[in-house]
Parts: sequence; C-alpha cells; structure tokens
Amino acid sequence: MMVLVRMRCVRNIRLMSSTTRPNSEPNQILMSPSSLSSLDLPYDNHTWTTSHSPHHTFKAAAAAKVLDGKLISMEIKSKIAEEVARMKRCIGVVPGLGVILVGERRDSRIYVRNKIMACEEVGIKSLVTELPADCAQAHLRNAVIKFNKDPSIHGILVQLPLPQHLDEEEVLGALSLEKDVDGFNPLNIGNIAIQGGEPLFTPCTAKGCVELSIRSGVEIMGKKAVVIGRSNIVGLPTSLLLQRHHATVTVIHPFTENPQQITSDADILVSAAGVPNLVRGNWIKPGATVIDVGTSPVEDLSCEDGYRLVGDVCYEEAVMMAAAITPVPGGVGPMTVAMLLLNTLDSAKRMLNFI
Amino acid sequence: MMVLVRMRCVRNIRLMSSTTRPNSEPNQILMSPSSLSSLDLPYDNHTWTTSHSPHHTFKAAAAAKVLDGKLISMEIKSKIAEEVARMKRCIGVVPGLGVILVGERRDSRIYVRNKIMACEEVGIKSLVTELPADCAQAHLRNAVIKFNKDPSIHGILVQLPLPQHLDEEEVLGALSLEKDVDGFNPLNIGNIAIQGGEPLFTPCTAKGCVELSIRSGVEIMGKKAVVIGRSNIVGLPTSLLLQRHHATVTVIHPFTENPQQITSDADILVSAAGVPNLVRGNWIKPGATVIDVGTSPVEDLSCEDGYRLVGDVCYEEAVMMAAAITPVPGGVGPMTVAMLLLNTLDSAKRMLNFI
Repeated sequence: MMVLVRMRCVRNIRLMSSTTRPNSEPNQILMSPSSLSSLDLPYDNHTWTTSHSPHHTFKAAAAAKVLDGKLISMEIKSKIAEEVARMKRCIGVVPGLGVILVGERRDSRIYVRNKIMACEEVGIKSLVTELPADCAQAHLRNAVIKFNKDPSIHGILVQLPLPQHLDEEEVLGALSLEKDVDGFNPLNIGNIAIQGGEPLFTPCTAKGCVELSIRSGVEIMGKKAVVIGRSNIVGLPTSLLLQRHHATVTVIHPFTENPQQITSDADILVSAAGVPNLVRGNWIKPGATVIDVGTSPVEDLSCEDGYRLVGDVCYEEAVMMAAAITPVPGGVGPMTVAMLLLNTLDSAKRMLNFI
Repeated sequence: MMVLVRMRCVRNIRLMSSTTRPNSEPNQILMSPSSLSSLDLPYDNHTWTTSHSPHHTFKAAAAAKVLDGKLISMEIKSKIAEEVARMKRCIGVVPGLGVILVGERRDSRIYVRNKIMACEEVGIKSLVTELPADCAQAHLRNAVIKFNKDPSIHGILVQLPLPQHLDEEEVLGALSLEKDVDGFNPLNIGNIAIQGGEPLFTPCTAKGCVELSIRSGVEIMGKKAVVIGRSNIVGLPTSLLLQRHHATVTVIHPFTENPQQITSDADILVSAAGVPNLVRGNWIKPGATVIDVGTSPVEDLSCEDGYRLVGDVCYEEAVMMAAAITPVPGGVGPMTVAMLLLNTLDSAKRMLNFI
C-alpha cells in the first residue's frame, strides 16, 4: 500500500505545473493518496536545534502581492478536469458529489449553486437533495444515508449551518467516513492532529489556505503562524494543518488577551473570525502574509446577489503592511471550492482504486 | 443521558475538597462523566472583545512556589480510593486495569511497577501481561484483545515505547476505545480538539498538567500558554487541553525559530521536549508558571533504581524567575499516575453505569 502511495505521489508531482513548493524540506513526501497538490508533509524525527532557517521570502513593500485564489483555483480545477476525464476514459466513471441543502438561507443557496457549477466545470457529477427548513432530523439523516449507500456518490456535503432545530453533530456523525469530503469527522480531525496520522480528507478551507500559500511561494516551515478563530470548520483544522507543515502556530480566540500583540508578530496571519475589519493595519507585521478567510455578507443592492462578502481584514490598511494578502472575494473562497472538488476526486480514486 | 451526566457533575463538585477552580467562567460545567476533578470546560459562544481579564495570579518572587504533584496526587488518590470503596460496597465490583509490558526496558518496568503500586493503593485491580522483547505483533495484539474481552478490565495500558519491530499504531488501534485510558486513539484526540467534542478519556499527562495547575490556583483562561514539544502522547494533547481551557496556546517544536523569544512571553510554560536543561532561566517570563514534563533518565548509582529522572528545565535558574514551578521528580509524574487511576475509575463507572 505504501508503495502504491509513493508511486501516486511521483505521478502527482509531475502533474503539478506552476506550483512553487518549499524545497528546504529534506524528506518531503506527499501523504494524500491522490492529491494533485503537496499539502501534507510528514512529521519527522528532526532533533531540537538552535539553528534558524532563512527569513520570510517576502520583503515589506509599498503594496502587498495579491494572492490570487481565483487564478490559482482555476489552475487546480484545470488539473482536476484532466484527471476526471482520464478517469472517465479509463474506467468509465466520474466522481460524484452529493449535496444536501436544508432551508432557504440565501447565502447557503448561493454557496451550493457555486459548488454545483464548479462540479460541472470539471466534469464531476453532482446530486442535490433539497429539504424544507422545517424538515425532521430523521428525514435529513435518511438523505445522508441514501447518499452513503449510492455507489455513484464519492463525496457528501451537508451545507452548514443547519436550521436551529436540527442536530448538526448527529447528522455529520451519520455521514460515511469514506465520503466525508468536508473532513469534519472527529476521527479525521484527530488524524490531522497526530504525528503519523493519515486523514482521509483535509477540511477544504484549511487545505485551500495552505495550498494557496504554498503555490504562491510563501514559506511555512519554521514561520510563526497565527490563526484568529478556532472554529471546527476553519480555525481548528487550519491551525493543525499549519503545524503539520512545521509552522509555529498560535491560535487566537475570544478569550485571548491583547490579540494585536500576538498577530503583529506573525509571519503568516490567517483570520477566520467572521468579524469585518477585526484585523487593522497595526495588527500586521510588516512583510507578513495575510490570509483572510472571513466572509461576512453585507447587504449591497448593487451586487447581483443583493449582498457582497466582506473579510475580517481591513484590506486598505493591510495591503500597505503585508507582503502578500488574499482579497475577499477572490482569495480563499474559490480555493475552498477547488479543494472540495479535489477531495471528491481523491475520494473517487480511493474508492475505485484508480491510480 | 445528558441529565445523568449533569447529575454526576453536581455530585462530583461536592466531592472536590481543596480544589481551586477558576470562577470567572460564566457557564462552567463538567464534561467528564465521572471525573473527580474539573478538567473539561465547555467551549462557548463568547463573542470577540477587546476587554482583558486580570493578569496572572502569581507575582514574581525571590523563589517560585513549588507545585507539589506528589501531595496533590495523594489527595486525588484518596478521593479515588473512597470512590472505589463505594463502588465495591454498592455493586461489589472494583475497577480493573490491564497493563501490557513488552521487553526488559528498565524505565518501562519501573513505570509499570509504580502504576501497579498506585492501583493497589486505591483498591483498583491490576493485571499485567508481560511479553518478551522479541514477541510477534500478533502475540501482542492478542494480549490486547484478551483484555478488550475481559469484563473485569475497564482500562488497558500498553506501556510505550514498544520494541522497534512492533507496530505501535496497529496495537493501539486494536485497543477497545471504551478501555483506552491513555486516550491516544485519534478519535479521542479529535474529540478533545473540536468544540463540543466529548472525549472518553483525556491523556493522563496532559490531564495531570492541567489538574495540577488548576488545583494550585494557576489561572489558565486567557493566559498565554506555550507548550514545548508536540508529541502525540504529551505535547499535542496538552496543547489541545489548554486551548479547551481557553488559554492562548503556542506549540514549539524543532522547526521553531528563536524558541526563547516565544517561551519568554508565556504565562504558562509546559516543557515536554525530553531534553535536559533545554529551558534556561532566560527562557522564562518573570512570574510565569513552569510545568516540567521532561523525564530523561540519567545514570546515578546513588539512586535506588540506578538512575534519576531529569526534567527539561534548569531548575536552579527557573526557580528564581517563575512564580510557580513543578519539581522533577515529584511534579507531573505522580499526577500522571493519579490521572491514569482516575481514567480507569471513570471508565469502570461508565461501563457499569455506576453514578
């Protein structure tokens, strides 16, 4: 099995085109069974030392480099489309994503629509089960179970948040581990956290943040990374994944005293608090990389959907301090969708034993 | 079930004698089903704020307060003994711990001996399976499975490290989740990490560090905690548990640049690197709490066992900087053993539905 994984890795490295990867890792291998990208570095037995690796790649400049998640996600989607086509050609099957949408939340409907469109772009089949906002727990659970049993579905996504009366944990618990492309299962999270753990999936936003950084030439290993927010969906997995990439990680949360003092020492600052303008210019170390995961909807009738998404970071201030920064929209968002497609492809490959 | 847990909690609060618990937590409940101590605080929906809680309880002094793990563990063991006796009186059963020891490692044999003696102290039954250093994987797995099936055994401990030829992960994976009193299973670790997760067990050393801190009056919530080391057994679970207690946690590892700069800003410094004298006086913030988990054996023929245990911290220097410090031995070590007994008691209560 291990040989198989390594063979896949070699193949996948070849598939990577414009990816910039840190080359200071002495024994870098890919752990994700069929990922197109180099997300998972192994832990190793490196001994304690006082020698330091070179400083951050970026130098403070007048205005930060914009990390173009839209462009990079298109490159990734293009590779996914090639793989999906190869799969169809070789075994006559395409990956399938099952999406469950409960209720009428406008933002949820738009997110689901975007994911479905992205599936279509790359040739992944998608099935959507829509349930009314007042649906019973058992009804929702049955929808999950139906997708669990459907052999044409390789990934299942329950669009969150659910209406208040539904038990999110119970629903996610019913989801087949092998199809949990969001990677929110505690076993999966535990396997991201522990050294040597082999998660089946890495949660999409966390994976998107790290992938965007790596592909943009941001060095992670040895750097101080600060994650604002410790949500199960974003903050926690992002902090664990950055640590897996050998960053020195600090997690900031509502109980943190003087967060600005901590963030202003970060080489990589990931904000996932969901609070517009939380991160001001003076929260940012000159030359840092700033990754803004915040997506708070703000009403804006001039926009097509009637609202626009606003990040956590005060962009105008941050862009003058940081060396690299993600825009909102167009930064982490499209990367998250691309990672969902990638996880679905990976899942299909694993389930179908397609190399 | 929830009602049951809460009732247990109320009862257990009464059992606590000299425990000092942070009282600034607005909605503190106990999550561990039958713990004697207040280890698990819930995550909550606290909103982001810039107000700060009061500063560290301790003030820098000429010499630090010594956190007496031996004394506190004796208090805990006394309570455990009472509970074991009550269990025996009420249902005629005592908790049982199964220990598997492979090979002749001197330190492992001593650790196992100490754990067995501790079981005897509190009335917990212990069974030890000794296997030769060259035993086969299947042989070891069968020993685990035998304990899994034994209804008189409520906790199983495989003494680590195992000889090189044995697959530790496979062995621990064979261990029944309900009896995994070390709490090393990835699912358990994931449940410590995620908000709302309900781990069956908290790994003993992590639990010992936090319990020792709380019982010594060290405030954790909102404080900067730095954990040196990210091992699956100590560093990782300790960092996750401290975060669960609302500390702002940074994990230092061999790739960390300038660790001294990070540690010297820590209100609580936990060192679990296994490197004698790694933490010098100038690594410590004046007034910090220093918890030394390091236990490196150093040959010393004047000692009964032929060696003595040395921590990571240069004690003579640290004691003049810190406000509180754990000695080695007599700090975290006895707390770890006490937590093993507590986990075994908790497990027996859960399995036997004894409140």
